[in-house]
Order: sequence, then C-alpha cells, then structure tokens
Amino acid sequence: MSLCPALAISRVQKLQMEVRFWMNILSRVQLANYADFCVADYAAPQSPAGYSCKNPANVTVDDFVYTGLEVAGNTSNIIKAGLKPAFVSQFPGLNGLGLSLARADLAVGGVLPLHTHQRATEIILIVEGTVVAGFIDSNNKVYLKTLKKGDIMVLPPGLFHFQVNGGDTPVLEFAAFSSANPGVQILENSLFQNDLPTELIAQTTFLEAAQIKKLKGFLGGTN
Amino acid sequence: MSLCPALAISRVQKLQMEVRFWMNILSRVQLANYADFCVADYAAPQSPAGYSCKNPANVTVDDFVYTGLEVAGNTSNIIKAGLKPAFVSQFPGLNGLGLSLARADLAVGGVLPLHTHQRATEIILIVEGTVVAGFIDSNNKVYLKTLKKGDIMVLPPGLFHFQVNGGDTPVLEFAAFSSANPGVQILENSLFQNDLPTELIAQTTFLEAAQIKKLKGFLGGTN
Amino acid sequence: MSLCPALAISRVQKLQMEVRFWMNILSRVQLANYADFCVADYAAPQSPAGYSCKNPANVTVDDFVYTGLEVAGNTSNIIKAGLKPAFVSQFPGLNGLGLSLARADLAVGGVLPLHTHQRATEIILIVEGTVVAGFIDSNNKVYLKTLKKGDIMVLPPGLFHFQVNGGDTPVLEFAAFSSANPGVQILENSLFQNDLPTELIAQTTFLEAAQIKKLKGFLGGTN
Amino acid sequence: MSLCPALAISRVQKLQMEVRFWMNILSRVQLANYADFCVADYAAPQSPAGYSCKNPANVTVDDFVYTGLEVAGNTSNIIKAGLKPAFVSQFPGLNGLGLSLARADLAVGGVLPLHTHQRATEIILIVEGTVVAGFIDSNNKVYLKTLKKGDIMVLPPGLFHFQVNGGDTPVLEFAAFSSANPGVQILENSLFQNDLPTELIAQTTFLEAAQIKKLKGFLGGTN
Amino acid sequence: MSLCPALAISRVQKLQMEVRFWMNILSRVQLANYADFCVADYAAPQSPAGYSCKNPANVTVDDFVYTGLEVAGNTSNIIKAGLKPAFVSQFPGLNGLGLSLARADLAVGGVLPLHTHQRATEIILIVEGTVVAGFIDSNNKVYLKTLKKGDIMVLPPGLFHFQVNGGDTPVLEFAAFSSANPGVQILENSLFQNDLPTELIAQTTFLEAAQIKKLKGFLGGTN
Amino acid sequence: MSLCPALAISRVQKLQMEVRFWMNILSRVQLANYADFCVADYAAPQSPAGYSCKNPANVTVDDFVYTGLEVAGNTSNIIKAGLKPAFVSQFPGLNGLGLSLARADLAVGGVLPLHTHQRATEIILIVEGTVVAGFIDSNNKVYLKTLKKGDIMVLPPGLFHFQVNGGDTPVLEFAAFSSANPGVQILENSLFQNDLPTELIAQTTFLEAAQIKKLKGFLGGTN
Repeated sequence: MSLCPALAISRVQKLQMEVRFWMNILSRVQLANYADFCVADYAAPQSPAGYSCKNPANVTVDDFVYTGLEVAGNTSNIIKAGLKPAFVSQFPGLNGLGLSLARADLAVGGVLPLHTHQRATEIILIVEGTVVAGFIDSNNKVYLKTLKKGDIMVLPPGLFHFQVNGGDTPVLEFAAFSSANPGVQILENSLFQNDLPTELIAQTTFLEAAQIKKLKGFLGGTN
Repeated sequence: MSLCPALAISRVQKLQMEVRFWMNILSRVQLANYADFCVADYAAPQSPAGYSCKNPANVTVDDFVYTGLEVAGNTSNIIKAGLKPAFVSQFPGLNGLGLSLARADLAVGGVLPLHTHQRATEIILIVEGTVVAGFIDSNNKVYLKTLKKGDIMVLPPGLFHFQVNGGDTPVLEFAAFSSANPGVQILENSLFQNDLPTELIAQTTFLEAAQIKKLKGFLGGTN
Repeated sequence: MSLCPALAISRVQKLQMEVRFWMNILSRVQLANYADFCVADYAAPQSPAGYSCKNPANVTVDDFVYTGLEVAGNTSNIIKAGLKPAFVSQFPGLNGLGLSLARADLAVGGVLPLHTHQRATEIILIVEGTVVAGFIDSNNKVYLKTLKKGDIMVLPPGLFHFQVNGGDTPVLEFAAFSSANPGVQILENSLFQNDLPTELIAQTTFLEAAQIKKLKGFLGGTN
Repeated sequence: MSLCPALAISRVQKLQMEVRFWMNILSRVQLANYADFCVADYAAPQSPAGYSCKNPANVTVDDFVYTGLEVAGNTSNIIKAGLKPAFVSQFPGLNGLGLSLARADLAVGGVLPLHTHQRATEIILIVEGTVVAGFIDSNNKVYLKTLKKGDIMVLPPGLFHFQVNGGDTPVLEFAAFSSANPGVQILENSLFQNDLPTELIAQTTFLEAAQIKKLKGFLGGTN
Repeated sequence: MSLCPALAISRVQKLQMEVRFWMNILSRVQLANYADFCVADYAAPQSPAGYSCKNPANVTVDDFVYTGLEVAGNTSNIIKAGLKPAFVSQFPGLNGLGLSLARADLAVGGVLPLHTHQRATEIILIVEGTVVAGFIDSNNKVYLKTLKKGDIMVLPPGLFHFQVNGGDTPVLEFAAFSSANPGVQILENSLFQNDLPTELIAQTTFLEAAQIKKLKGFLGGTN
Repeated sequence: MSLCPALAISRVQKLQMEVRFWMNILSRVQLANYADFCVADYAAPQSPAGYSCKNPANVTVDDFVYTGLEVAGNTSNIIKAGLKPAFVSQFPGLNGLGLSLARADLAVGGVLPLHTHQRATEIILIVEGTVVAGFIDSNNKVYLKTLKKGDIMVLPPGLFHFQVNGGDTPVLEFAAFSSANPGVQILENSLFQNDLPTELIAQTTFLEAAQIKKLKGFLGGTN
C-alpha cells in the first residue's frame, strides 16, 4: 500500500466520492473528444474536408463496420471483373480518416482497365490467383510484375495502372487507398462514354476517328 | 482479334448488353467521385476547410471559368494601380483546390504597397512593362530585382513584399497564389485605416506620433 | 517630395478622393479575408476540419480571449490534481488554428495518470514546483526527467506519458498542444470506466481478472 | 483525315522527325517527375518527412512489390498470434506515400493485445475466421463487434483497440494503415517491458504493485 | 514625446547602445528563420518533401527569379505547341513552397494533348488568342469552354484535360500549379512511347491492336 | 484462470520461452518506430520538412527537455523587453513536431513591437502582470484586449500583432506556436535595419523620407 498511495483501495467508499470530482473534471475534457471520428451525415452540407459529422450521440459500432465486401462482385460483364468499393460514400465511418478499401474479383480473362486514382496511393493484395499488374510513371517507364497469392504492390498516387488475371483460376484481391474517397478515372469511360466530340479526342490523343467512333458506339458515347 | 479478346467488337450487340452490367458496377464507384471538386456554395455554412460544396448536380463549366480578369483594373487612384483578385470569394470553382490568381495593372509610377499574404506563396509574372519587385526575409535581408516582360519571381509565404512600376510604360502582371484564399495585409491600411490608438502604434512601431496622425488623416483612421 | 511622389500629403483633399477608389478596390480583396479565422459556431454542422464558422460580422475580441485558466483546478480528488482544458470546445477562437492550451494543478502527491493525446504534440511548462515527467516510445524505451520551475519538455504525438508532483509543494504547469482538439485517452478510464468485459481486458492486457474487477468497482465500470 | 489534322499518319517519316522536337521539349518536363515516388534509401539521412530517396535511375518494379506477407506468421507464442508488418522499414517503395499494410495470423485462442497506432487510421479485413474486434473512444465508450469473413472495420487514429480470435478456426486478416509508418504501442510492452519504476506505474495507472511486478517478471521488465 | 516614451529619439546615442542588446536577443530568434525558404540544392539527398536546402548564406535574389519563360517555346513539332515548365527542377527557389508556373505557346492548329497532373490543381490564363479547353470528371462528364484573352479556368487535380488553339492566331497562355512539381502524364506517351506490350494495352484500354501498333511506331514505342 | 487463458502466469517458465518468440516478432514492428520523433541533427542536410534526424540510438531524454527559459530575458534595452525563443533551432527535440514555445519578460513600459509569425498560430499566456495585446485582421479591424494573470489569447496565423506592458509591474508571459519554427518578422527591423532604399520604402509605405531616415539611423539601416 505504501508503494501506491494514490490507490488506497481499502477506503473505497471515501474514494468513490472523490472519483465523482475527478470524473466531473475529466468530463469537460472529454466533451472535446467527439472528434475522434466524424461519421458522415450524408444529408448535411459537404465541405472540401468531406461530409458533415453525424451527431456523435447517435454513432454506434455499426457505423465503423462494412459488410458489403463479403460477397464477390458480379463478373458476368465485358471486363469479366467485379469491383466493390468501400469508400466514404458507401462506408460512413471513413469520413475524414484518410483510408478506404475495395474488393475486386477477376474471372479467368478478367481485366481492371487502365485507370488512375487522382487522390490516393493504392496497395493491392492478392488473396487468390495470379495477377499481372502494371503502372506507368510520368517518364513513361513501365513497372510490370506478375503477383501471386499473398503478394502486395504499391501504386504511387495519380499514375496510370491496370491489372489482368494472369492465370487460369479466378482472382480475389483487395486494394487499400490513402484517402476516404480516392477517385477513379477509367480511361475508356473518360474518353468514350460521354459527348466529348470525336474530333477533339482525335486531336488530343492521336487516336484515329474510326477507332474512336467504334468505341463510342460500344460504350455509349455520342458526338 | 486474338490479340484483343476483351474487345470483340464484331459481337457488338451481345457486348452492349454486358456493358450495362459493368456500367452499373462502375456507377457505384462513380458516386463517390463528386469530390473531384467542391464548388463554393456561398450561402451555406463555412468551415476551416472553406465553403460548403454546391450540389454537384448543379455544377457547370462556368463554375470553373472566371472572366473578371479580362479588363484592366482602374489605376486612377493614389497608388496608380488596379488590383483584381480571382480568389475563392470571387471564383467559386477554386474552393478547396489550393490555388488562385490575381491581376495587377500599374500605371507609370504605380505601386503595390508593402504587404504580406498570410496564407500563401506567390509567383508574379510580368506580361507587360518593367517591375522593381522586392521581399524581405525574417533576417531583414532584402531581395530586390528588376523584372522585365516574361520574368517570374517567387515570394515565400508570409514575408513582406512590394512592387513598383520600374519603367515609363504601364505594367500588366499576374500573380498566382498557393491558396484559394491567400489573404492580404497591406501595411498602411493595417496601421492607419482603423481606430488603433496613435500611442499604441507609436510604441509598437517606433514611428513618430505626428507621422502616424498625418497618415491616419490621409487614409481615414481615427484615434 | 521628389523622393516620395506617391505620398503628396500637401494635396490631401484631392488624394482623399482618390483613396475612395482604392479602398473600393481593396474592399473586394478584403471580402476574401474572413478566413483569417473561423470562430466556432457550436450550433452549426461540424466537418472533419472542425466546427462551422461563426458569422465574421459577429466576431469580437472576446472570441479570441479565454479566462477559464485563471483559477486553479480543484485538487480535492483521487489524483490530487485539477485539469482545465482550453481546447476548441471551451475556447471557440481556436477553431481551425491548430493550437490549444491546458492548465494543470497538482497538489503534493498529485498525479496526471498515464494517458495519450491521439492528435497532438504536447509541450509542458513548469510554472511552480517540481515535476517528474515521463514518456514511453514505441520501442518501450522510457524517457524520464525531473523538471523544475521554468523547464519545458516536449512529448511526441500519441505516446504514453504521465506526470507526478515530484516535490513537497504544489505544482502549477501549463501544456500547449499542436491541435485545437488534441484528444485525451486516460488508460484507467479507457479500461475500467465502461462495460468492456473483464475477460476481454484480461485477454488483451495480461492483467489478472481480480485486479481488473477491483479497478472497475473503483472507477465505475461494469461487466 | 480532316477529322484528325494533328495526326497525319500517312506522312509518318516527316512526322517522326517532328516527334524528336516534341520529345526533347517534353523530356524537360519529365525531368521534374522523379517525384512520382521516393523509394527509401535506408543509408542516407532521414527527415521528418521520411527516408531520403533512392536514385530514381536505380529504381525497379521490385521496389514496389513486397512478398513478405505470403507466408503466415508464427503463432507458437504467448499470444498465439503472428504479426507481419509491411511498413516503410520493410518495404522501401512506401516511403512518402502515406499507406502501408500488415498481416496477422491468430491461432485458436489468439489475441492481438490492446494497442494504439499513434500515426494512422487502420482498416482491418477478415480473410479467414471470426474476430472479436473492439476500440475505445476518448469518452471511454466501447465499440465491440464480431467480424466474419469479408467484413471490414475502421479504427480511428490513435485510439486503444484489440482483437481476439472469436471462433474455433485460425484467423487470417490484413490491416491497412493511412501512414507508411503507423507506429505501434502495445500496452503491456509499454508498461512492463522496460525499466519504468513499479511505483511510478502504480501511481499513474492505479494498478497494484504486486500485479505490476508479476507482469514485469513475465515480460522482462525491471525496477 | 510623452505620447511615445519608448522612442526617445533625442537621446539617440544612448539608445543605439541599447539597440545592440536587443539586436543580440533578436539575432537568436532570427537564427531560426532560414526556413522562410528552402532553395533546392540539386546535389544533396532528396526526401518525400523535396530537395535538400541550399545553405541560406549562399542564397541570392537570383534563386527566386526565373527568366526561362521569356521566350516562346518552339512550335515546329507534331503538336504545333511549345511547353516551357518552371517547376522546381528548373527553378530552385520553388522548393517546398507548393507553387509553380509553365508557359505554353500554341501555333494555329496547336494542341496540348490529353494529360493529367497527378499532384496539383491547375489554373490556365489566356494571354493571347483563343483556346478550347476541357476537362473530364470521374463521372465522365465533360466540361468544355472556349476561352478568350484574359479568361482563366481552373482544372481540378488529377483529372484528364486538354487544350486546342481555337482560333486562327497563335495562343500564348500560362498555367499555375498548386505544387512545386505538379507532374505530367501525357496519355499517348504513357501508352505508346515505351515497351508496354500491345496485347496488354489492348486488353486494358479496348483499343484495337492495329491502332496501338500504328501509334507505337509513330511515337517510338516497342512490343 | 479460465477467465484469462492467455495469461497463465502459473506456468511462467514455459511462457517466458514463448515471450522470446513474440518479442522477436514485435521487434521487427518496432524497428519501424524510430519515427516517433526526429530529433534535429544540426549538421546534416535540411529539407522543406525540417532538419535531418539524429540517429535514434543516440537520442536521450535531454533532447526533449529545454532549460533555456528558466531565467528571465534581459530587459535593459530599447523595448524594455527580453525575448527567449525555444524554437527548433534552440531545442532539437521539436524537429518535425509542429509546436514550440517562447518566454517574454516585459519591464514596466516594455513593448513587443508590431510583428507577424508567418508560419504559426500563437497563444499567449500571462503568468505575471498585465498586458495590452492586440492584433489586426486583413480587413484592418483591430482586436484589442487588456489581459491579466492567467488569461490566454489566440493570435491567428500571419496577422500583425503586438503587446505592451499595461501595468506598473513586470510582465512574465509565455507564447505557444503551432510550428517548430514559427518565424518572426518585426516591422521596424524589416523596414529600417537593412539597405532597402529610402525612396522605395517611402513609395511602398506612404511614410515620409525624413521619418524613414531617422529610424534607419536609429536601427542601423543604410540607403
């Protein structure tokens, strides 16, 4: 007991009275701490820093858990790949915390087309299968690698990158991003899935008009 | 064609059906991407990160274009200079994007008085004329240079600086700032265009009371 | 006069007319500058960047001054210490400015229990008395020092630290934090002042169940 | 061809000559772009921003790939858990990119003891098994959840958290962190695996001296 | 004089002696202030925060002035455009200051091809001529505008954008960037000016192999 | 014991063997953690993020403690005030941690002249005496307050501010800054303690040449 004068457990009742004083004092400190997190309130105004914060009194553990990545994405599509983001728009607990995740399933022959994330570094993690992953730096140098189960690869922010299923079994992979909302620009959607005039695309990409029109037709673009 | 199995353009109709699956998947990703920008909604609450965001559904290209710098500022004034900012308060597309511009016109004899920008680096670009530009670092060392057409000069954040028309023709220059809202403190306005008591100014600047009162009278200050 | 053509004080009336032009120009610049500060509006939405901003037209000097640290905290409690924060929740002028203060009074035998600040560096300043202060880095190395009046010590962000009154006179100290809302996690409150099951605490801390239950009883925890 | 005047592929040879001009121009831009990444040079000076950068001429794709997470960690230990970090100290490509990963294997009965990451948000991803995960906010409120395969949970930065294998099969999980070097403070190591005097621990945690000495003996602490 | 007791100019000699005391005191403060800037030392180690700093004793005003934008870029090339960056690799005074500039000259028919800046917001300023400028957000929405002399347009960070001379006279424009080293990825160089295999490009962009090979041949790519 | 299977203290020897495994595992994690801090190595290169880091093996608690503020500054000078900074140039433990402190002693009649800190918010804390403190925002509005013992006041970053001893006893105050190196620009030193030509000062401040020359003579300026 002499080693521990502040504890004095044998005089519990007296001390419990004292605890009330201390807890009162601390409660004022703790009022300041709702900012441990800022769970997104999707209905309130947004700012450059993200969504407004849900009233902390209404926050529960379920705001911090997301189950939408449990089931594989549908791969019955043109890229034979299913993408499931867990970004702040799907997962409110991420708001303001600078981190997010996504799941990708690639059937045999599946592809994650050339794209960039304009606001984040990415790390990919191969859980099942084999993946050929690549990125291109701004000197146009290509970094290409075949990744197997358990491998991880970092993709610097904003650079073009892609992945293809490099084997004959399905791929399951996850990606982590250094932003709650990393952004995605997929090249062929950016170019061919809107009304950007064919002539402007041709002038600014060197692609031939015939190629552009074919892909616009295919992906739903006009002009 | 065998080089490009994912494309298979000859089976367009079948693929277009598949595109619908993929676009559905991607649309969920894309919902997260309104944060490519946060155009200022001047009527909603402001936060330390800037203005609230305008509903992205109502954003148009005109939110990203500003025409207020087309015409020269009026130089018929005491400093023979016209200043036209394109900061976030004038140009809503800048909100949250960390960059802004301004135009300055200096008639012959024109001056941009000693001032600081408390929240930004500045680069000045001389488009017409000759400018004597200077800044002072916090060791009181002076960096002074005569700039001609096409020259640029960087002014580190928060330091005192100034410019004067150094020639016998008008000056047109632009300034870029590393903040959507760089802030401006002009020394003589800070000191002489308010009710700060003359005695306090004298005590804290070493200027003589007579000099202070003269400039207060001139610039509209009191006390 | 030839040294100072821009001043021309002898023609004050003419110049005062010109000042109006210039002030009009500058007023547009100045509209952008409400963001010198963002005094907290506690009633409006919060974002990851902090509270919304009070209308600058209603801001006065009193928003920037806090008097709550004048009087000592009550030390008649179990830790013989009184803590008084001046964080953004108490002091609205701090919002968005990345800095805050707190006062601590430690009676003889007083203790600031083991805790972390998850969002800030701290500097402590001893104004009266003698303090034994320590922090533990993530290699488990202990940095321990007896501080006397006038000494300061920096505590890196997020690390465990503590202080005890190391003398036989009361201690008055202040702490500065590199955040308007540094956050406080006090170990025994985190562990023993809630409903976290005893078995989980035992499993994840190696503490014995009897010790845990005793402290839960003492501090008001359940389970 | 009229749709695409800038391309003019039929005059390839002439254009290829012109390409040389353009590539020369662009090469100057590209010289600026080594900063797409800053692969760690472990031998050079470190700064608050991380390691110095490896000469980009020597960077290869292998700097961006890490294979150390392929194999499970050894769980034949007191916590029945194996931890394998892929932080910047192990994985040089992460330097300066604000993101990292780790792998954890928990045998049946395995535990990740109570700890904090002082510099990062964390998201955990359950790949195999069932996990009871919890964190404690700075109001001492507990957020506790049983996570199954495919679930993810976000842990706000700097808060106490822990995980235990909640089932009767091994757990494989990965964690992403919003820092290349998130830091780890494990409570019992911080308290009991160094020379921090027992009396100071008792005073600042309310633990009893006997409990402290027992755990010091167990974990290798002294004093 | 009674208004200004701290000044006492009539006793100049006595005061000048006192000034020495104060200057000594201030000199210690000023030693801390070399960090007003960090002019790049290209020969020393680089970190994620940029280049090492040149010894401040050797810094002169010329480190802060750049004259390389005075003369138009050569437009006798395939894009009929000349680009001249003033990024930190060319202009050492920008190091660490988060801002840079570039000049572009577009002959009639000139084009700035589709590209992204992975680390910066951009504002373009039209000094001469007419420009059709566009960017594409990550919902694939196109923002297209014809800009005339004096107009400015902001391009959010990381998004695809382009410009073409929209008139029958040469264009002179400048661009400001919110980074000392914004990075540039030009789509056709990224895709067609390296050894990225044609099949991988086809798979991940939907472009046809023939189109890819034609552009590789044209731009110097292989594989 | 069944409540706490992971602990099993009765089998200490067996467990201590197991601890070795775990400690080995953790040691790899801990290698990453030297970045809890980055004590300044004044002899190595500096970067925009601060000084290089001292070898962590040589860091001791004394790197985190600064005793230079114990004794009052000398007030026998023209401003009757003594300033003692504890910035990163004096106190190496602050490097990279975003916080610093200073001490000011003001004799009766003492003044802290008009100045700005270009890189930090400041909070002043009055420990003894009475202070008239003021700052001026960028709309030229003055915020003026008489502060007594125990009061604190926040000064937004980059704005002009000053303090004068407002009573008839000495003042002891401390200031905290949200930067390890806040920077100081003192107006009269910036203007009058260098070789900035009198005519340029007159043109850019509206001060009269006679006033400027008098203060240059007084403070050691030339030209």
